Amino acid sequence: MGLVVQKYGGSSVADAEGIKRVAKRVVEAKKNGHQVVVVVSAMGDSTDELIDLAGQVSPVAQGRELDMLLTSGERISMALLAMAIKALGHEAQSFTGSQAGVITDSVHNKARIIDVTPGRIQSSVDAGNIAIVAGFQGVSQSSKDITTLGRGGSDTTAVALAAALNAEVCEIYTDVDGVFTADPRVVKKARKIDWISFEDMLELASSGSKVLLHRCVEYARRYNIPIHVRSSFSGLKGTWVSNQPLGGQPMEQAIISGVAHDTSEAKITVVGVPDKPGEAAKIFRTIADSEVNIDMVVQNVSAASTGLTDISFTLPKSEGHKAIEALEKRRSLIGFDALRYDDQIAKISLVGAGMKTNPGVTATFFEALSNAGVNIELISTSEIRISVVTREDDVNQAVRAVHSAFGLDSESEEAVVYGGTGR
Amino acid sequence: MGLVVQKYGGSSVADAEGIKRVAKRVVEAKKNGHQVVVVVSAMGDSTDELIDLAGQVSPVAQGRELDMLLTSGERISMALLAMAIKALGHEAQSFTGSQAGVITDSVHNKARIIDVTPGRIQSSVDAGNIAIVAGFQGVSQSSKDITTLGRGGSDTTAVALAAALNAEVCEIYTDVDGVFTADPRVVKKARKIDWISFEDMLELASSGSKVLLHRCVEYARRYNIPIHVRSSFSGLKGTWVSNQPLGGQPMEQAIISGVAHDTSEAKITVVGVPDKPGEAAKIFRTIADSEVNIDMVVQNVSAASTGLTDISFTLPKSEGHKAIEALEKRRSLIGFDALRYDDQIAKISLVGAGMKTNPGVTATFFEALSNAGVNIELISTSEIRISVVTREDDVNQAVRAVHSAFGLDSESEEAVVYGGTGR
Repeated sequence: MGLVVQKYGGSSVADAEGIKRVAKRVVEAKKNGHQVVVVVSAMGDSTDELIDLAGQVSPVAQGRELDMLLTSGERISMALLAMAIKALGHEAQSFTGSQAGVITDSVHNKARIIDVTPGRIQSSVDAGNIAIVAGFQGVSQSSKDITTLGRGGSDTTAVALAAALNAEVCEIYTDVDGVFTADPRVVKKARKIDWISFEDMLELASSGSKVLLHRCVEYARRYNIPIHVRSSFSGLKGTWVSNQPLGGQPMEQAIISGVAHDTSEAKITVVGVPDKPGEAAKIFRTIADSEVNIDMVVQNVSAASTGLTDISFTLPKSEGHKAIEALEKRRSLIGFDALRYDDQIAKISLVGAGMKTNPGVTATFFEALSNAGVNIELISTSEIRISVVTREDDVNQAVRAVHSAFGLDSESEEAVVYGGTGR
Repeated sequence: MGLVVQKYGGSSVADAEGIKRVAKRVVEAKKNGHQVVVVVSAMGDSTDELIDLAGQVSPVAQGRELDMLLTSGERISMALLAMAIKALGHEAQSFTGSQAGVITDSVHNKARIIDVTPGRIQSSVDAGNIAIVAGFQGVSQSSKDITTLGRGGSDTTAVALAAALNAEVCEIYTDVDGVFTADPRVVKKARKIDWISFEDMLELASSGSKVLLHRCVEYARRYNIPIHVRSSFSGLKGTWVSNQPLGGQPMEQAIISGVAHDTSEAKITVVGVPDKPGEAAKIFRTIADSEVNIDMVVQNVSAASTGLTDISFTLPKSEGHKAIEALEKRRSLIGFDALRYDDQIAKISLVGAGMKTNPGVTATFFEALSNAGVNIELISTSEIRISVVTREDDVNQAVRAVHSAFGLDSESEEAVVYGGTGR
């Protein structure tokens, strides 16, 4: 039996009871003969409370000191978890990101992991301890300052440690039973996926599925670390994310892995753009200069009579005003008639490697939407994904229709536990 | 202008308002041309809350993991203070004990400082920053684990940093105006002491005065670091503790520095001990083996008729049961008739280097107690201190009587602010 890395989010360690429940689960893995390394997030809402406090003392709290502040959260949960494990008669030691050798760049609040040197962790587990590591944090290679990894940081810590320690698996414990074929809050008959490839999971993550973040899956794929996403509440087997189904349990790859949706984006249409080379470049250079990330881009066919065309793109709602402002500023330089801003949209994506070799997927997708009376505003495709933009009001109906059309509905409604989200 | 170390206790940084008030005071020192290093404790009661949490997950929370847990407290207050200072337009950086180079032994929960290597702090202040350092914590030299310094640890951190940085002064900000000639809660006419020698302060600290702990004063004396104890609320000049009055403000050393009292001790009397060599040694070896610290020791004159004597000693109430148990266990080996335990006692101490050269101090002390109708149960003296044990009920009356007899009363009642205590 090899080494296992387990990650528990904030909702799993929200209070003393939660911490004791996690301790039991950790000890179980140890008793099963594994070396165990545990990555924890801060308790429940404690991060938000710290951010509140920061707001009270300073209007511009960020950077180095915000990282110093927030990293106290994991320090509390990891020390408590180590104590709870010791109370069960097993040896445990907690380590900060810095002690665990999580080396990052110097970009405070959203640092990237450069290297992991887990010498102390390896020694600790070799000596028979369960090692507990603070998620979400590291230490800057150049300045030796404490850094945080930003959103989804704890999952990334877990996968990075699993890679550096050559772990058998990285188990991500959360408040749902795994990755589902659609959001179970929307589709009651969504099925838990037993296995999904890294590629499909990456597409789902970037299409609105929130169970795993893109960044963490990308890291796991690069180092080929199998991820097992599962519930810390139910104890059921969850979803395996890996290169190929694990040996001993052959699984047929589904044509379609799942349907994801995302209502966090807005659409901007630049109306009346001269249809000549260089115009699109001007627009997207302007957007890039204002540090806004865009998602889908569609250029309409030019109307022959005017020589003008429209260009639409989607972007996070939170960055809408920045993009509008930037475009208005360069209006005369770019040359367009008007800007239209629309934040009542939804994106629905169908993901599955099988669609490469199965003609008719696109047709079935569009037919399902049409039958449900859902109008399509934009379309964008990759090799293993089709995304459309619709009215936000239509999203639940659209997701259910597509889910049914591809035979993804389970026979019963599955039980799912919901809570807060970790980091 | 040189470098100043300022230390703020938990009650000074109990909430956002407190932190902002402290930030203003820190910035003032910086504006006056000083390099400023600030040592902070955890916010208000946050340490107790963390200890509560630890108790909820484990009945035996201590050692390495308790230190990891508790050190999150200073991490929060120091990061918030740095933010509050930045909000005032000055540069600040916070540092953990480990980052500040506070190297300790490996005794968790009550580590001792072995060395301070403040390279990062020196660089930070040389670059124009205000450096904020977590009090109460360090890093073990051998295991590289996080340690805490135990009671009064933040004061000790401040003095140790002041020594290592060759500071002009170590300012200890607290919730009283300084060191008083007696506890102002007992003696309304107690006077604030403007200057007191290290030696007298050491005796006061070990006799029940709680403003500065013995350990911190001892450290300051060894490295000759002047301490200025003052209120973070009033901003008044407080009490200077140093080798000799600072130049420019000659002060005459008082004969008597102050009257301290202590009601935290109990008295044990070992009755009917054979008056022969080696008996006392057996008793105090027994006490030492049970790791109990004792304070005063008195052996009565032996009664010639029986050849038996009584031996009394005082010790912290909290350790009374341990001592009784240890003595009972070796009763036959030691040989005594009975044990008497009394926790209704108080110790009153008169401290002042002047008493060495002023005959009559002892007489005046005893006369004052006698006139107040206070009975003396035990007496112990050092070169610059006289201590007596009385009934606990008599303590306030006794302290007031002695304070008056030595002319320590001020003409008016001074204003004092009280709050919680730091660590």
